[in-house]
Amino acid sequence: MERIGFVGLGTMGGYMAANLRKAGFEVTVWNRTPGKAAALIAGGAREAASPADVARASDIVCTCVSDTPDVDAVLFGADGVAEGLAAGGLVIDYSTISPSATAEFAARLKAQGIGFVDAPVSGGSEGARLGTLTIMAGGDEADLERARPVLEGTGKTITHFGPAGSGQAVKAVNQVVIAGVYLAVAEGMVLSMKAGLDPQAVVAALGGGVAGSWILANRSAKMVNNDYPLGFRTRLHLKDLGIALELAQSLGVVLPVSALAAQLESGLVARGYGDEDMSNLARPIRQLSGMEG
Amino acid sequence: MERIGFVGLGTMGGYMAANLRKAGFEVTVWNRTPGKAAALIAGGAREAASPADVARASDIVCTCVSDTPDVDAVLFGADGVAEGLAAGGLVIDYSTISPSATAEFAARLKAQGIGFVDAPVSGGSEGARLGTLTIMAGGDEADLERARPVLEGTGKTITHFGPAGSGQAVKAVNQVVIAGVYLAVAEGMVLSMKAGLDPQAVVAALGGGVAGSWILANRSAKMVNNDYPLGFRTRLHLKDLGIALELAQSLGVVLPVSALAAQLESGLVARGYGDEDMSNLARPIRQLSGMEG
Amino acid sequence: MERIGFVGLGTMGGYMAANLRKAGFEVTVWNRTPGKAAALIAGGAREAASPADVARASDIVCTCVSDTPDVDAVLFGADGVAEGLAAGGLVIDYSTISPSATAEFAARLKAQGIGFVDAPVSGGSEGARLGTLTIMAGGDEADLERARPVLEGTGKTITHFGPAGSGQAVKAVNQVVIAGVYLAVAEGMVLSMKAGLDPQAVVAALGGGVAGSWILANRSAKMVNNDYPLGFRTRLHLKDLGIALELAQSLGVVLPVSALAAQLESGLVARGYGDEDMSNLARPIRQLSGMEG
Amino acid sequence: MERIGFVGLGTMGGYMAANLRKAGFEVTVWNRTPGKAAALIAGGAREAASPADVARASDIVCTCVSDTPDVDAVLFGADGVAEGLAAGGLVIDYSTISPSATAEFAARLKAQGIGFVDAPVSGGSEGARLGTLTIMAGGDEADLERARPVLEGTGKTITHFGPAGSGQAVKAVNQVVIAGVYLAVAEGMVLSMKAGLDPQAVVAALGGGVAGSWILANRSAKMVNNDYPLGFRTRLHLKDLGIALELAQSLGVVLPVSALAAQLESGLVARGYGDEDMSNLARPIRQLSGMEG
Repeated sequence: MERIGFVGLGTMGGYMAANLRKAGFEVTVWNRTPGKAAALIAGGAREAASPADVARASDIVCTCVSDTPDVDAVLFGADGVAEGLAAGGLVIDYSTISPSATAEFAARLKAQGIGFVDAPVSGGSEGARLGTLTIMAGGDEADLERARPVLEGTGKTITHFGPAGSGQAVKAVNQVVIAGVYLAVAEGMVLSMKAGLDPQAVVAALGGGVAGSWILANRSAKMVNNDYPLGFRTRLHLKDLGIALELAQSLGVVLPVSALAAQLESGLVARGYGDEDMSNLARPIRQLSGMEG
Repeated sequence: MERIGFVGLGTMGGYMAANLRKAGFEVTVWNRTPGKAAALIAGGAREAASPADVARASDIVCTCVSDTPDVDAVLFGADGVAEGLAAGGLVIDYSTISPSATAEFAARLKAQGIGFVDAPVSGGSEGARLGTLTIMAGGDEADLERARPVLEGTGKTITHFGPAGSGQAVKAVNQVVIAGVYLAVAEGMVLSMKAGLDPQAVVAALGGGVAGSWILANRSAKMVNNDYPLGFRTRLHLKDLGIALELAQSLGVVLPVSALAAQLESGLVARGYGDEDMSNLARPIRQLSGMEG
Repeated sequence: MERIGFVGLGTMGGYMAANLRKAGFEVTVWNRTPGKAAALIAGGAREAASPADVARASDIVCTCVSDTPDVDAVLFGADGVAEGLAAGGLVIDYSTISPSATAEFAARLKAQGIGFVDAPVSGGSEGARLGTLTIMAGGDEADLERARPVLEGTGKTITHFGPAGSGQAVKAVNQVVIAGVYLAVAEGMVLSMKAGLDPQAVVAALGGGVAGSWILANRSAKMVNNDYPLGFRTRLHLKDLGIALELAQSLGVVLPVSALAAQLESGLVARGYGDEDMSNLARPIRQLSGMEG
Repeated sequence: MERIGFVGLGTMGGYMAANLRKAGFEVTVWNRTPGKAAALIAGGAREAASPADVARASDIVCTCVSDTPDVDAVLFGADGVAEGLAAGGLVIDYSTISPSATAEFAARLKAQGIGFVDAPVSGGSEGARLGTLTIMAGGDEADLERARPVLEGTGKTITHFGPAGSGQAVKAVNQVVIAGVYLAVAEGMVLSMKAGLDPQAVVAALGGGVAGSWILANRSAKMVNNDYPLGFRTRLHLKDLGIALELAQSLGVVLPVSALAAQLESGLVARGYGDEDMSNLARPIRQLSGMEG
């Protein structure tokens, strides 16, 4: 059984590392902010002093950090994974970052004889805890097959989309689609309320038809209540949307609705709402329409 | 059993009248363009010479025509329903028209002792044929109860949302929500294609998660193929969106995404694409991104 | 000298009629709401009992009312201008209304042997008072020439753009262009303020270059102060933009920025800001950006 | 008289360096791509082997390069200006780059005892050649005063907006405002054409009123002809708009129109139109409206 390293023990990474431990893997962990590893250690994981040290103790190193520069730092910075991981190793990056940077990171690792799989996820902290995440994977076929037992220890649906960076590109598509659907549902809910309709009845009637969506079924009530418990944070979606818009620009893809969503989210973050659930995209629609928002 | 009149035998109305006949109702029909009633007559319906004549032979008159002025004409024009329907009668309007005009029509009929139910539908010609339409109803409780056997003869899910006009308001919400979801899915599909991903794999991976929607599951392939068999016509959705934007303006509701969709659809109609399925909202996104559109 | 009738003595029409009187014309006036004619009568005008009566006493009848249905009513309603004006008469419509309805009104009058010029204006109440309005005219060449002395009595710049309705089309273009420029300047001003720049210095520096516009020079200070004295009312611009968007839709012209402006103005009107100057398009940009708006 | 260095001899920088030479300054130059200095050397300038060498021969070093990373490289990279410039020197950066990076560069130079002025320009290559550029300056008052003779050698209007980075922030505002005005004029021109109006007559009539702008007067004809000779390149404006949108996001400023313009420009660049004049923002409006675009 391959020895697993895990770098980045935030909400997502912490649950994932725990699930890998439960699945029977030997797990060595590291987090930038200390003190996150206690529960994992109690569960039998070992803590290392740096990403490089994690790598020295591992065959496969998983990373789950915030953004492109963070992945760059934990892989290629001083005491980074690339310093400690022997040729023949494999890196699995669960972070949501730039697809083009991902392809470049993979190429650099390949030059050292190290494999790479990008494996951004969707399903939130709930999915991470239960091990039911949807995993969008990119990388060479052989790397993907080698990574599969690890991926299966952390998620339920695993799809391989193509070379390194493909998983990130699919994650970008996901964030683009949900941006528009959130806005669509927000417009519908605000119109319902101002028209004096019972929003719950509207959602029930529309949900089974062409207008039906996961977001309509599961997030419209937050919009109606103007109360946005998590969920998925607006500031994180804005970060992801920035990645998607950058990808789109590099490809010449024109995304008017996603660009509008990014603008509205930027205002939400500035107004102090960045840590609410991203269904708070209803706030600007409410506010512009003269409701509390 | 109440005697039913049916005014407007287009694609939707023709199927609905046939279903009412099959359900055992005595049905008298009229259509502006002659020659649409042949199959219905063969099925036992009677044809009348005008909407007023339909009304004289009916207890309940159903209307299913194109737009607000058409409903106005068949109800209150020369030889209109209001001329022929006795006090104690009931009008059920299946058309998709203005909610405020609807409320006004209902008030005018009430002054004549005639009840009114607005009952716009979703589910398309397939739903009309199979009698599985979703019906969004508005009107007085008593009128609604009286209408119910007729509504049940034409649709499967019937929801009563409030006074006359409420059904139309819910239909407007439906058209607003789908406008945004179509654009969201279009942006995602164009990004997928330009990023070199397999769109079918993307749809499969995203469909079960937060990005999932009926439109993603059922309409994304048309966008990928840039081929838009019906479905629901772009020019009809543009008409409905016009109603929704007018309702929104009267209420001060701000709908940036729906307004953008209406602009794009207006261009599609002008370019000769108005009779395609409305998933052709992908055309402008494709076109702006340098793809065939 | 031709005898002039004037129907519609609002802010604009009142000043225009007074200027025609000062220019030496014999003027007969009528207004829907009584009591508006007092000052004009003191200045030598005569008041008539209806638009038809105005027409009976006039060779040329000017109209200056709110919207398409108002022009329809004063021209073709009971006791309307068309009832009283003899063949050989001329109508000049200063209102801002639908270009296609205008063409239709002109055709109906022509069938009665009456000429027609559409002459919507820009320049506001100040321009009306001083007789310095810009007049955008449509109509037959001969009608335009006959109208010219009257137009010159009310405005300074008179341009003839083509057949009846052309003046209204140009006015629609004007309202479209200013919608976008107001939003452009609003975005620039909000960014300046939040970046800690002195907005007055920014306006001074930008005004002489590519970014320069009348609106930047004359309206940006209102946006900075978030105080919007008139000027031109938001609710009137929204009405005009409705006409422009309808014209655009009939021509298949796609206007994303104007459509967004109309949405934002609709929210402003609903929030009670419809009678402010339309530079309050800065309000939603401010508000979304977390400033008072 | 201070000795001047000039790093970056592109279209803009080449003219500026030549003007400084003509103004009597001793000028030492360097360009990444060799062969750009010939004319300058013929005019009495000296060529150095690196930015550091330029700096060793200068009291004040001007930079005029493409983007933030380029300024970073010529200032702080190997053989960069910071390596060669003695304490007491001054850097003037004419490039258009990130305001926040600018503030950071200024701080790093200050720690070495070197002053800094950011001085982005507008006015295009014509303005650079004639020395009539508008210069938007940021930096300490003393640095600005010391820079003034150099700035006056290259531009006509020089405004000091505040600390280092302020000039860049104003340039960002400029690019935001013009994005919206270009779109506004494009919408107006396309509507004019499709309405059968003479666009030249429309521009003449509107230009003197509220709708008047430099862009309407000077760029609308290109939009009508669908031919976009330079001017200012779309791909450069897209780069600048990226800087502005990043600034806006850091401040929570919501810019829906600028964000839309950036999307449309991204599509234009992908379609091969990035080196046209940015008035080609009319292309997508034309195209969506069924015209050649």
